[in-house]
Amino acid sequence: MAVPVGAGPLDAVIVGGGVIGLSAAWRAAARGLRVAVVDPEPVSHASRAAAGMLAPVTEAHYGEEELLALNLAAARRYPSFVGELEEATGQDTGYRECGTLAVALDADDRAVLQDLHAFQTRLGLAAEWLTGRECRRLEPMLAPIVRGGLLVAGDHQIDNRRLGAALLAALDRQGVPLHRVRAAELLVRGDRASGVRLADGTELAAGQVVLAAGCWSNRLPGVPPEALPPVRPVKGQILRLRVPEAYAPFLSRTVRGVTKGSHVYLVPRADGELVVGATAEELGYDTQVTAGGVYELLRDAHELVPGITELLLVETTAALRPGSPDNAPMIGQTVLPGLIVATGHHRNGILLTPVTADAVAELLATGEPPEVVRPFTPRRFTSARAGGPGRVVAE
Amino acid sequence: MAVPVGAGPLDAVIVGGGVIGLSAAWRAAARGLRVAVVDPEPVSHASRAAAGMLAPVTEAHYGEEELLALNLAAARRYPSFVGELEEATGQDTGYRECGTLAVALDADDRAVLQDLHAFQTRLGLAAEWLTGRECRRLEPMLAPIVRGGLLVAGDHQIDNRRLGAALLAALDRQGVPLHRVRAAELLVRGDRASGVRLADGTELAAGQVVLAAGCWSNRLPGVPPEALPPVRPVKGQILRLRVPEAYAPFLSRTVRGVTKGSHVYLVPRADGELVVGATAEELGYDTQVTAGGVYELLRDAHELVPGITELLLVETTAALRPGSPDNAPMIGQTVLPGLIVATGHHRNGILLTPVTADAVAELLATGEPPEVVRPFTPRRFTSARAGGPGRVVAE
Repeated sequence: MAVPVGAGPLDAVIVGGGVIGLSAAWRAAARGLRVAVVDPEPVSHASRAAAGMLAPVTEAHYGEEELLALNLAAARRYPSFVGELEEATGQDTGYRECGTLAVALDADDRAVLQDLHAFQTRLGLAAEWLTGRECRRLEPMLAPIVRGGLLVAGDHQIDNRRLGAALLAALDRQGVPLHRVRAAELLVRGDRASGVRLADGTELAAGQVVLAAGCWSNRLPGVPPEALPPVRPVKGQILRLRVPEAYAPFLSRTVRGVTKGSHVYLVPRADGELVVGATAEELGYDTQVTAGGVYELLRDAHELVPGITELLLVETTAALRPGSPDNAPMIGQTVLPGLIVATGHHRNGILLTPVTADAVAELLATGEPPEVVRPFTPRRFTSARAGGPGRVVAE
Repeated sequence: MAVPVGAGPLDAVIVGGGVIGLSAAWRAAARGLRVAVVDPEPVSHASRAAAGMLAPVTEAHYGEEELLALNLAAARRYPSFVGELEEATGQDTGYRECGTLAVALDADDRAVLQDLHAFQTRLGLAAEWLTGRECRRLEPMLAPIVRGGLLVAGDHQIDNRRLGAALLAALDRQGVPLHRVRAAELLVRGDRASGVRLADGTELAAGQVVLAAGCWSNRLPGVPPEALPPVRPVKGQILRLRVPEAYAPFLSRTVRGVTKGSHVYLVPRADGELVVGATAEELGYDTQVTAGGVYELLRDAHELVPGITELLLVETTAALRPGSPDNAPMIGQTVLPGLIVATGHHRNGILLTPVTADAVAELLATGEPPEVVRPFTPRRFTSARAGGPGRVVAE
């Protein structure tokens, strides 16, 4: 899959070395495009903090059917995406077809889950209702008070850190340059994006520029205001626990629940890591871990699975999801010719990685987005900000 | 206070560079003795993890009147000890005469605290009973459910990490050698301890050896079994929070309480650190931080002071207190001539630092312990282990 790298200008420079930017670079290079990635610290921030849930069915919401279609397409794309990546690199990504069990602890939770089940059923999504006893048969560590649950056999997970490492290895094999320095400014020539100037003064000339810098994608100097994607940071605090040998496997699938209105999930890796997340806080660019965030996650996880007290607490992290005004991603051409964005993935960045990568590669190669991402053009907000119909409130 | 260091053999080598070993070395060198300290990682483990409470009155227990006398002597010694150390080094130790407020959340807790108050009063210790409203007037962040409390104006705190750093600086100024390597073996010549062999092969010959290695003090090869102090590790998990400027000072004195049988304390430093501790677990030499330990500390602290949710969680640590069969320290000459121990300080290592340091220095200089530490000779366990009267159960 190695692509010869000539000496001419780049086809595209990708700003952002999270899983979105790296995978887009990988797919674009695989199509023969000459690309480079710019990030002072690749696979950090949200890509590193994430839990790696691939859960379109469990996370289906009323009124977000287009996003659901995108999420489902992304989930379907995962096995072959991961297969190609593991084949290209020889690295394990920790992709695990383990399913997800969403449980209810009281009658209110149960009603919410049953509504979700009805919605899923109407849409033809596979989900099975289980009694509390059936839940505990699948997951013996569940609290005795679990009243029932929804088994979604098709909602899986990936180890996002291994995914990031594999993407870096794949780019390395392709010879894609990775500039570990901050992007300082978008270069514009005439009416087009023409490259990026780095913080060290280097100028990377390119036919197109991809902004995939998560919640910082609206902060690159030089981007005309009307082309900036309206992302905002949504802070998430998340824990990494470790299951001692004596308690393995502890959980066999992702377990999630609502306790007194707080959502919590527990994602068990094959290697004994257990990820517990996540808060959702609108506090600007603050990434500090708080006593309250950690306390609530441990409290809620403990209520679902009391035995977590015996696990090791290995890491507490806070990172920033790139939120968008309508909670859906922005993938596509901006109003500035030559400037593409791929951000706003909010809670679904890991899930949407394969479909975003392919969409960006297609856009770079052909100028046209694939059908599945068309509803997610960033220009849907541009007209709104110009005062047109369909104005979106939260920006 | 600098002492000239000649070329001859050492008067004493001190195994252990926690606050006990370092302060003993400092006091011994101040008396003109030639000493050296051996520790691969000084001021780590319990000395670093501790909260630094200096609370003999709040921690007074029935049946431990001798230990109380030692603790009170240690607390009285603190101001001059700290004064000398700060004078010698120019470093701030974070000693803070802030007092301690022990609060009760329900009728059971209140009964326990009132019993303690009665005991304190009988012993002539200064402690004042406050209503819940009076407690909240002193500490507005306390939970509305606080039912009453005991104000102990004389129970203070020190920043144990600053204390450790100041002791290291003091030794440096005195020219006391600090060998940052593991002690591999006690050297014995004839019937006497004669020095220590280090892991790098160096042999330090010395007239006397002081074992001040915390819960590892019973593990030095070469020590005859009957001279080994019967210490055991008592795991403590502890948190360090930070008070954001907007919430300062948050608490003005140490706050402690019992909630549903769990003890918790919150120690506010002048610099905005808030230490929350501590679990007490008998798990051997395990120092892993667990989800359960952190959860319980946050839960209990949150019950006393709900506003801790707004603080930053900066550090989670686990370390090992050196426990002894009767919860009192072992300070004194062992059955092996030339071998002194200073360990077993359990929950009171920081508090007992000045009095232990002076006792070890006196022992090294004169062969006789000061009156106040005589009840704490390590030999009280040696006769027990030989099957004599006064046998102690827990070993």
